[in-house]
Formats: sequence, C-alpha cells, structure tokens
Amino acid sequence: MDRQGMETLLVVDPANMNYLTGYDGWSFYVHQGVILSVDSDAPLWFGRQQDANGARLTTWLPDDRIFGYPDKYVQSRVTHTMRYVARLMRDQGLAEKRLGLEMDAYWFSARMYLILQEEMPQSVLLDATNLVNWVKTVKSEAEIGYMREAARICEQVMQTAVDTIAPGVREKDAAARVAAAQIAGTDEYGGSSPAIFPIMPSAERTATAHLTFDADRSYAAGDVVLLELAGARHRYHAPLSRTVYLGDPPEDLAKTADGVVTGLKETLEDMGPGMTAEEVEARWRAAIAHTGVVKPSRVGYSFGLNYVPDWGEHTVSLRPGDKTILEPGMTIHFMPGIWLDTYGFECSEPVLITASGCEKFIEFPQQLFVKG
Amino acid sequence: MDRQGMETLLVVDPANMNYLTGYDGWSFYVHQGVILSVDSDAPLWFGRQQDANGARLTTWLPDDRIFGYPDKYVQSRVTHTMRYVARLMRDQGLAEKRLGLEMDAYWFSARMYLILQEEMPQSVLLDATNLVNWVKTVKSEAEIGYMREAARICEQVMQTAVDTIAPGVREKDAAARVAAAQIAGTDEYGGSSPAIFPIMPSAERTATAHLTFDADRSYAAGDVVLLELAGARHRYHAPLSRTVYLGDPPEDLAKTADGVVTGLKETLEDMGPGMTAEEVEARWRAAIAHTGVVKPSRVGYSFGLNYVPDWGEHTVSLRPGDKTILEPGMTIHFMPGIWLDTYGFECSEPVLITASGCEKFIEFPQQLFVKG
Repeated sequence: MDRQGMETLLVVDPANMNYLTGYDGWSFYVHQGVILSVDSDAPLWFGRQQDANGARLTTWLPDDRIFGYPDKYVQSRVTHTMRYVARLMRDQGLAEKRLGLEMDAYWFSARMYLILQEEMPQSVLLDATNLVNWVKTVKSEAEIGYMREAARICEQVMQTAVDTIAPGVREKDAAARVAAAQIAGTDEYGGSSPAIFPIMPSAERTATAHLTFDADRSYAAGDVVLLELAGARHRYHAPLSRTVYLGDPPEDLAKTADGVVTGLKETLEDMGPGMTAEEVEARWRAAIAHTGVVKPSRVGYSFGLNYVPDWGEHTVSLRPGDKTILEPGMTIHFMPGIWLDTYGFECSEPVLITASGCEKFIEFPQQLFVKG
Repeated sequence: MDRQGMETLLVVDPANMNYLTGYDGWSFYVHQGVILSVDSDAPLWFGRQQDANGARLTTWLPDDRIFGYPDKYVQSRVTHTMRYVARLMRDQGLAEKRLGLEMDAYWFSARMYLILQEEMPQSVLLDATNLVNWVKTVKSEAEIGYMREAARICEQVMQTAVDTIAPGVREKDAAARVAAAQIAGTDEYGGSSPAIFPIMPSAERTATAHLTFDADRSYAAGDVVLLELAGARHRYHAPLSRTVYLGDPPEDLAKTADGVVTGLKETLEDMGPGMTAEEVEARWRAAIAHTGVVKPSRVGYSFGLNYVPDWGEHTVSLRPGDKTILEPGMTIHFMPGIWLDTYGFECSEPVLITASGCEKFIEFPQQLFVKG
C-alpha cells in the first residue's frame, strides 16, 4: 500500500479477506469486505448483519472492528451497500484518503465503484487490482502445509476418478464419487469445497476447456475423459489434471500424450528460482517443438488460497511476456492442456518453487490412463 | 431493452448467458459475455479461444457469431479483454449505440466499465443491472420441469443429510455424502453442481448464516445442525432448509421451531398471485407475532437458473418495501432463517406461484428433526 501511495484499501475478494482476517463464509454473494488503513493494526470487516457472527467466529478481529449492515441494503433497488460503506469510512475518519480498490475483481462491480466515487468526492481512488494477490503469491510454511494436505486429498480424488471411469458407468456416478472424495479427504482430515467444480468432460466435450460431465450419459468405449480436479484444505488448493482413454487409444492421441508428458518432465527438471515465467514457457515450447504439439495458451499459473470461481491467483502466468522472476515459496500449476478439434489431452503438475528447483506437490503417474 | 432505450446489451452474468444462448461452461473466471442487438436475432458470444468450442457445443449460435479471443488477454497486466470487446463491437457496427451493461453484476468489474467507456466514447452506457434477471423471474413450463427434477434431487439430498447426521459421525463424511447425492441425483437423471456449497454448520456455527461443516469435527450430543442444501438440474435449482437436533432439544429451540413452522404454513396458505412481495412478508410477521420470534432480514427471494455464488435471482425479495406483484410462474424460496446468539433454526420451502395460490416444489416434513 505504502509503495503504491495508498492510505486505505478496500478488499472484497473473499480469498484476500480470508488471507487478511481469517473470514470464511459463503456470504460473498452479497457485498462485503475488509478495510485496511496504514494507521491501524486491525482491518474493519463489514458484511450483512446476519453474517457478523460469522466474522466473530472465523476472524481474529476484535468485536469493535466488525460492522453488520441492515438487510435493506441486500440487492436493493433503492439504495446501495456502498453508501453504507462510505458512511462507515467517514465515521472512522477514513474518507479523504488515498483509497485502493480491487478494480478488476469479480466482487467489485462497476456500480460499486461509481457509488463510492459519488459518496467520497474527497478520496483519491487508486487501482489495487491483485495487490493482495501478489503478496499471497509467496507462501508461508503454514500455507505450504495446508497445500500439502490438499495434495494428499487430491491424490485420493484423482485415484477415485481413474478407478471409477469405465465403459457403461454413468458419468454422474463417477462425478458424485469425485465430489464426495473432495470433501471426505483422508482418514485424518477433511477437505473443503474446491473453487472449481469437477471438470470431467468426455468424448467430443473434451475438445474444449471447462465443460464437465454429462448428467445423463454413460461412458462408452472410445471415450477420452479429461480430469481437472483439486483437493482443497481450508480453501488452499492442490489441482491436478490427467486423461483417461477407454479402449485402445488412437495413434495421434498416444503421440500427443507422449509429447506432452516428455515436455512436462523436461520443463519441470529445469524450472526453479531465478527463471522468469516466460522462460519456463519457452523451455516447454522448446521441449515439444519436435512433437508437432502446439499449445497457443499459457501453460501455467500461480495458485493457492481461493474461493469460486478460480483457484488461480491472477498473478504469475507462464506465457510470453510475463517477466515475473520465480521465487522460493511460489506455487505454480504447470498445466499444458491441449484441446484439439475432436479431443483433448491434459497432464499437469502443481509445484512448489524451492531454493534449488521445484518440488511436485503430488505423486501421480504422468501418463495417459488406458482402461478397458 | 426497447423499453429502457437500449439498442445493444452486454450480458456477462453466466446464468443470463445460459438463458439467452444455452452456453454452459466453468469459464466465467475469465471475461466472457454475449452481446445482443435489437437489430439481430442471434447474440454474439465472446470468450477465451480455448472455450470457443464449448460455445459451439452448448449454444444454438451459428459459428459466425462465436468469437474467441487470444490468450494474451487473460488476466493481462498490459492489455484488457474489454479492448478486444470494444473492437469487436466496432467491427460489427455496434459501437455508437445505446449500450446496456450489467453494472452491478459479480462479473462486470469497475475496470471493465472504465475501459469500455474509454474505448467507446460514442456509446451511451446505460444500467441494465438485472434486466435479464427480471425476464427470467417468470418461468416457462420447460424451466419448471427442470426445477421439478431438481426438487426430486433435493429431496434425496436432504434425506441423505438427515439420515447421516448423528453423534460421533464426522462432519466431513456427512458433507461428502450430501455432495455426492447432489450430483448422483435420482435413478433416472443426474444433478449439476449447485450454485452454493452445502451449508451445514453445527453447534455454535449455527448462530450465523453461511458457514458450513467443520472438516475436522465430529457431531456431538447437543448439536444443532442447519442444512441449507439444493438439488440442481441443468443449473436450475431447488433449495431447501431444515434443522436437525442431536438429543433432547432445549425448550427455547423447540418453541422457536414451532413458531417458525406454524408461521411458514400459515404464510404459504395465503401466498399467491396478486399479492406483493412485502405483503407476503407482512403475512409472515403477523403469523409469528405471538411467538416471540423476530426475523429482521428478508424472508425469501426469487430463485432458478444460476451459477456460483448464488441461486437467488436478485429480483423479488420478500421484505418491506418490495412492491413486486407475484405472478404465476414465479418461483420463490420462502426462507425464514433464524440466527440467534447461540444457535439457529431454519425451515424453508421453495414454491411455484400458480394461477390460484402457490405450490410447494418439495414434500419434506416441516419440523425440527430430532435424532439420538
């Protein structure tokens, strides 16, 4: 904040709220946030009155920093929560400041901005998009611990998927087992609902990203099934992608799989601190150059603590032009997903940048899983 | 659009995109949308290049209305997707129009607005917040059919929860069974991932809205457990709340439960077309006046087709001041949740407004469930 000339900061991204205060509830569908000031040790939390007890239960904030607003502000057609927030900031002596806003966050709408601008004409509004996200990008030991727990969950989730998917099995039943495994976790501890639903398209639905199972279909011989699944622990994620083929894989798919897996292994061998994000992508591109595989989109991104709709942190992207230098403690999902005209292939690895290289969070065979 | 003087409309809410085109993918974590023009029968879809096949597979749009943007726009620090969108609109002759924007949608950030304003100085930007949501509020027969299927799923989900929760059972294991039931659906058809994760807090966590299970705790005698769960079918929801008590319920909880259930029954008897939303709330308040139960927040809302983070439609709210007249085909979640200082009680009903009254989507006993 100081470096960017901000005296106050309004944080509405639920993962950033959690990071700063511990707040953890499914209440981000109404306006809520925390307000930081460079002059104060404790942020202010504001949210709907009925969620204020949730802030008392899940945050470390003292009671006098928790402000619940009346229900008349919820999805109102006559007033707006930002009017309440502006008054709160005035009451706390936080108006007339240089105020940072998460201008491009899902949870900071155009209307919220315009109302704040109208209500606080003496404030200087600054762009704080991803400011907290960048702080989060390097993880603490405690955070890495949660992500390792999430990784153990993810291994069970992926194994459940690979074991269950077979010709004749209903897609919904496989997806149900996956969803259960995400929550049931290990014998020792449970998981939390991941930030992205189970992505597990089959057949022609694998020719694109981000579709999922068909609730009314059964798997059939000749299906490709893409699996992009995560374990999550206290909202910290460990994502992983793998691909299953039901039957004898066609030659071009087997060849694509070989090319991707080889490129993945070679890239991870070199990936480490001091490299830039774009250098990792270039390393990958060099490794697959001879295979004929072309991957026009980024091949990875920073991940960690998050809520829907994304476990990515919107900071580091492995792609040309991203000159971020990798540092120990960063956590990157190396994700070279290939979507061709009639099918796709995915094999990814979530890794921790260490002092000397990178460390896989998950041990799961890197291959095309072929099932009868 | 015509009534509000709009010639073009940019829709970014994923549920509204689905409603207008059929598009269904977990890709709303990057910028995407559909653009409508009063002069054209088919909207334009734009999204990330890797999701364009998803638009071909899930929408009814012809290929020449589907535009995938290059990956360099994704979470970029040097350009912005709205620059691509502005150019697309110029190329299509849609700049210099009166353009409606979903100004207060989760998926329309302050930054998106400012870039569009900068890129399209000849356009008149208008507020189209919830414009499509209001169209969606009255459901077609086909939509009601999906919601009835979602209701069958929800009955199984709620029964699973009530059957599983017991002293000594780990909360994570109950939540895992609930999550699986949401996807597995009925013998006939599967469900889709609901827009809100299973809300099932226990003990002191029931004193507030929107917390969920504790991944490391087991249920114990004396627990109140709140269940706010949905079935979903093709993204159409049927939500339901119920409450479980483990042991002999304390007198004040039993009394609160009686008051709420009686008030719920009396209100639903009268609820129907021609009443306003605030009249329903007033009817409820009158019904519980003698019980000592106080409910300071809205007691219900319109629901239907949705994605995370909310299955509510952000239109009708049952609360003082909402003068919306209920019409046949509207679908309302009557949800008088009570959160007191040390526990909560919930018993809700999703209903369809009919020609003569209202019809419950779900048949599930209205009571406090008491388990050994």
